[in-house]
Amino acid sequence: MEKNQFRRDPISGQWTIILTREYEIPDLLRTSIHTGKKDAQLQSKYASGNEAETPPEIFAIRDDNSQRNEAGWKVRVLPYRQPLLEIHGELNSRGVGLYDVLDGIGAHELVVESPQPNHDFHNMTPDELGDVLTTYRSRILDLKRDPRFRYIMIHKNYGEGDDDLAFHAHSHIIATPITPARVKAVLMNAMEHFRYKERCLFCDIIFQELNDNVRVIDQNDHFVALAPFASRVPFAVRILPKKHETFFEWNSEHTQLAELLQRTLVKLHQILDDPHYIMVLHTGPNMATGKRRGYWKTLERDYHWYIEITPRFQAYTNFEIGSGFYVNVISPERAAKILQTEKTDVGKPESKEG
Amino acid sequence: MEKNQFRRDPISGQWTIILTREYEIPDLLRTSIHTGKKDAQLQSKYASGNEAETPPEIFAIRDDNSQRNEAGWKVRVLPYRQPLLEIHGELNSRGVGLYDVLDGIGAHELVVESPQPNHDFHNMTPDELGDVLTTYRSRILDLKRDPRFRYIMIHKNYGEGDDDLAFHAHSHIIATPITPARVKAVLMNAMEHFRYKERCLFCDIIFQELNDNVRVIDQNDHFVALAPFASRVPFAVRILPKKHETFFEWNSEHTQLAELLQRTLVKLHQILDDPHYIMVLHTGPNMATGKRRGYWKTLERDYHWYIEITPRFQAYTNFEIGSGFYVNVISPERAAKILQTEKTDVGKPESKEG
Repeated sequence: MEKNQFRRDPISGQWTIILTREYEIPDLLRTSIHTGKKDAQLQSKYASGNEAETPPEIFAIRDDNSQRNEAGWKVRVLPYRQPLLEIHGELNSRGVGLYDVLDGIGAHELVVESPQPNHDFHNMTPDELGDVLTTYRSRILDLKRDPRFRYIMIHKNYGEGDDDLAFHAHSHIIATPITPARVKAVLMNAMEHFRYKERCLFCDIIFQELNDNVRVIDQNDHFVALAPFASRVPFAVRILPKKHETFFEWNSEHTQLAELLQRTLVKLHQILDDPHYIMVLHTGPNMATGKRRGYWKTLERDYHWYIEITPRFQAYTNFEIGSGFYVNVISPERAAKILQTEKTDVGKPESKEG
Repeated sequence: MEKNQFRRDPISGQWTIILTREYEIPDLLRTSIHTGKKDAQLQSKYASGNEAETPPEIFAIRDDNSQRNEAGWKVRVLPYRQPLLEIHGELNSRGVGLYDVLDGIGAHELVVESPQPNHDFHNMTPDELGDVLTTYRSRILDLKRDPRFRYIMIHKNYGEGDDDLAFHAHSHIIATPITPARVKAVLMNAMEHFRYKERCLFCDIIFQELNDNVRVIDQNDHFVALAPFASRVPFAVRILPKKHETFFEWNSEHTQLAELLQRTLVKLHQILDDPHYIMVLHTGPNMATGKRRGYWKTLERDYHWYIEITPRFQAYTNFEIGSGFYVNVISPERAAKILQTEKTDVGKPESKEG
């Protein structure tokens, strides 16, 4: 079968992965996502004890006396069953007339984040969540050894998935041979800020936010959770290390990060009634690719890793007008205030004096 | 009441409009959009005869003997009842610490595209659709006289809307004091292509596509409808004038454009079973703003207007991974082939020989 392709749109500059796998139109038109997720069967092929039903593991955090591909694990990483990208092969970077194309080479791994179904981040103990973060770190460090991969993306799409994944905590790790246009834009913005101010953009944001104290949702010694000043979506959250650090995988304070992340997700869960959300880990790109021009040269100085959590609502309250601007109907200041409290009387009008 | 605000995210560079209007959390959590649209009442306050229920019109195409704000119109433009932006006032461009803020100044108009409800683009005659295009042109020309407005955005979100708009053909016209980051990226890409090739990027794409003839959906003498090579979404369509032209509002071939647009939308309607879609008119930005650096200097040479139609599916088949890449499960070549035929046996597996 033909490989999937990375294709670049010369107008927008964005890359899309075009799948070659046959996909039928009626599948596009199904309108319901994950109905009945809550009541779904509690037998999951990803659960502990069902290791024979999955591909062999790439990595796991396990009890000392347990065996590979058997029970006794806490977090487990598998090749994804329908990978967007294939690990073997050449990129075959080429031009098709004026268009840019690469073969769909990369890594696509599935992190199974708990041995039991229906046990996701907001239910976990900070220790359990810490094991997930340790797994992310370990996989990033390993994948960055491959100089074909410019960028390692970890995202969790809570609420997604057909089959058993719909109710089993999981994330995707995707290693790609190109840096996405949006990531490049962030790297450029960070570089330009440093050039002008001689300070890290992210450190400046953290300093101002801690001073203003109107968009700080929560914090501990090492991390802060913010409602971004120009948040595109109601109740979006960014979590950043307070000290300058380029790469998530260099961080050693997983206990504190797990604690803050868990607390934040519990609040979102309570206030937004178990919302679907996307969590993205924005770590620095792969320094091993040998590309040393532009923003790569000063990357460690300019860039600062962060985690972004974006709740998903229906289009009406979370929309982009004419591929131009996002419109956010809840100000970040209000979102922060609501998220500062553990329990909120959802739906009751707030006092105007507040 | 405080004005809405444009706020710029210094990390992504994107602008968001933050609404000050109070919005309650339960409104965020409603999960159904426009159920029952098809069976909705056929009395719409936007229909001919109900002019007294709407604000006074800004513009209309009318029968010769009809009066302003009375029946006898074909297309009518009104101020939008809950405008994102206000027409009166100063921008008050300012820094809030390191953040950039502008007051929500701009225009927000509603185009009522038919005197009767449930009569949208795919049902219209090319003449009726031509009147809508003429209305767009007229409003763009008028709004561009205001030097505060850098960009005029016209978008149609077919399927959106609560109240009567859910089943009454309409578009939004939004004039903004800033150029959106995504538009800037397109202008930069077009400028860089011209610098390198001494040819218009869009003209080059059209030339290649007409030659390759595998992603051409339809065409007539003056326009071509393409499935973009790196299309982010299944069945996305771009319609471009074949001859170089920077501004939609300078175009005089509305009859041909209406004909091609209508034919394309009929096909999408048939093949995707009346899909929700977003249509965006990408015309060149406002030359009257006096900004003459960078891409503005060579705008007329570099930029080429186009219309983009993006069907909306559920997240599963139209998703962005980790705010990095889009994944498209139907190749543009296959989409073009399916859309080339007027009637398609939707759902039947295609012949592999085909």
